[in-house]
Amino acid sequence: MELEKALIVDPVDGEYTGSVTIGDEKIAEIRRFSCTPEVIVMPGFVDLHTHGQRGIDAMSASPQDFGKWAEMNFQQGVTTFLPTTVSASLENLQEVMQNLSQLPLSIAGLHLEGPFINSEKKGAQNPDFIYPFTERHEVVLKAPVKLITAAPEVKGFEKLLKVAKRRNIEVSIGHSGATYEAMKVAFEMGVIRVTHFPNALTPVHHRELGGTGAGLYLDFNLEMIVDGIHSVPEFVDLVYKVKGADKIMLITDSISAAGLEDGVYNLGGLEVEVIDGKCKLTSNGSIAGSTLLFNDAIKNFKNFTGCSLVELSKVSSYNALKNLDVGKLGRIKEGYIANLVMLDEQLSVLKTLFKGEEVYSKL
Amino acid sequence: MELEKALIVDPVDGEYTGSVTIGDEKIAEIRRFSCTPEVIVMPGFVDLHTHGQRGIDAMSASPQDFGKWAEMNFQQGVTTFLPTTVSASLENLQEVMQNLSQLPLSIAGLHLEGPFINSEKKGAQNPDFIYPFTERHEVVLKAPVKLITAAPEVKGFEKLLKVAKRRNIEVSIGHSGATYEAMKVAFEMGVIRVTHFPNALTPVHHRELGGTGAGLYLDFNLEMIVDGIHSVPEFVDLVYKVKGADKIMLITDSISAAGLEDGVYNLGGLEVEVIDGKCKLTSNGSIAGSTLLFNDAIKNFKNFTGCSLVELSKVSSYNALKNLDVGKLGRIKEGYIANLVMLDEQLSVLKTLFKGEEVYSKL
Repeated sequence: MELEKALIVDPVDGEYTGSVTIGDEKIAEIRRFSCTPEVIVMPGFVDLHTHGQRGIDAMSASPQDFGKWAEMNFQQGVTTFLPTTVSASLENLQEVMQNLSQLPLSIAGLHLEGPFINSEKKGAQNPDFIYPFTERHEVVLKAPVKLITAAPEVKGFEKLLKVAKRRNIEVSIGHSGATYEAMKVAFEMGVIRVTHFPNALTPVHHRELGGTGAGLYLDFNLEMIVDGIHSVPEFVDLVYKVKGADKIMLITDSISAAGLEDGVYNLGGLEVEVIDGKCKLTSNGSIAGSTLLFNDAIKNFKNFTGCSLVELSKVSSYNALKNLDVGKLGRIKEGYIANLVMLDEQLSVLKTLFKGEEVYSKL
Repeated sequence: MELEKALIVDPVDGEYTGSVTIGDEKIAEIRRFSCTPEVIVMPGFVDLHTHGQRGIDAMSASPQDFGKWAEMNFQQGVTTFLPTTVSASLENLQEVMQNLSQLPLSIAGLHLEGPFINSEKKGAQNPDFIYPFTERHEVVLKAPVKLITAAPEVKGFEKLLKVAKRRNIEVSIGHSGATYEAMKVAFEMGVIRVTHFPNALTPVHHRELGGTGAGLYLDFNLEMIVDGIHSVPEFVDLVYKVKGADKIMLITDSISAAGLEDGVYNLGGLEVEVIDGKCKLTSNGSIAGSTLLFNDAIKNFKNFTGCSLVELSKVSSYNALKNLDVGKLGRIKEGYIANLVMLDEQLSVLKTLFKGEEVYSKL
């Protein structure tokens, strides 16, 4: 297959026109030449934090559901993602792991958001299933889990970190009441990632920088939900100005209501009301995930920050892949796996290629 | 007079070695040549927010006191400053203006901090003397006043701004509960300055950036008290990283206790306890100005941020002068007034020149 007259956007080599030839699941050849491009080609998008979409929920999804989810995500240009759990019983989490033991298509593994978090920063997590990490919880720190969100101030965190490292599972700080100092200590222990920054962290104060200040000031990589609801556009732009495009990873944090109509849904056993696309716990009004779809996340980020396409390829794909150990992905370069997304000028997805095969076409 | 073998630090031309010849109150000639410099020469420091020093308080200072204060400030390398009032009765403010009608030495005018501020963000200002601006208060918007701190959300602000503009008085936002939107509106009306950022402003939140977020995100120039008490070093460094050295102005916000021992002092009729150099209202523990001296402010800023000497010349002098209309100051350049400070490698003041005359020497 050949992609002709393309504006090729690579996070490292930059933006240029030419063609991309695909063979044997990979990018076989790139030719650079001057032309008026007819399509934007970017590395396929990566969403490392998504609880569900269109009625499917990671917590209750069957093996078939995970496959359907992956297909739905191709419409969003997403070619790598991690279904994400919420705080739950050990048994429930193990069930989800079992259902996902075969990783279909673009699913690279599982993200456990909780249960080893701080109940004071629970957000929309169910407090009944938040608990500290002990030895008996080690059973969830294995394949298909690739990423776990935990709070460094909660008992057992150091133990968790040690086991996760040994098993090649990335740890991300989230739902945490950590002070700046605690964040710094965690960073020095090798934790370089923050979950849905700055939601469910302690705020910035000029005499106690808090979790939010630590995310801004220290060299953390930050997940961000760029739906205009979790943070206002100006805050997103401020984070972009402070951190630069190398340190931001777009995520959706979407729940099963994403792509569906307003109504009443469920998240980890808690009732969620969706009104105008905004998800809130019925019980207390806490923001409960999003209905954001990935294609909209990249449009929003571009609008809020005015970033370049090359920067967009970083926040939508390259940065998330850097620490994930999932093979040669995230670049448009000979030898890389041909997970690609084609976009029009408005950044709407036209086509998605997965391992060189067309898995979605708008036309 | 000639300053030989100097490391010359100019905010615009940068850092280079050579000599500076002074004649007729001005910098007559600069010669650039390679040498091992024996002294650092910078433009004299500027402190636009200082309530007092060594027993002198702007609110009660006699004309002679103001002169003494200027002489004391030469020891700190300060060659331009604005004694600063606190919220007080109209009569009291007019008295201070009267006492300062002759501007001695390095005093460029008066800074009125209040009384047209928000009592909910009073900090250590006396609430008995906080009131909205009305026509009858126009009498304090005239010489020697050069700068006024006011809150944009307080009634009468637009009127105040209009009068101040006409009379060439700079307006700075401070002691304000303004939202991000209110800050933005004020910025669009031409207010480009924030008083002792981020103290006595609303905090940053990711869904309401507040006064602090507006200071960071919009193109405001920010006063900062860099004593390690009003803000932690990391916060100062974060502001430096976000705003750059062009948008920060060091101030002391010092009270009469500065340069004296710990004890009990007075600020605007309120009792202040100074313990280990920290000033707090006896009544409620609010931070009440500082005991910071300017020479320490520049050392702190260099330590906290690792900035260059050229950047230090901006935050300690050049930026504050840009909007102040006080003549050719703040540069080391032929034709500029020879207000200069000589420093050793530890940035301690060795000598101060005021209009080409040696007014302080450590030796």
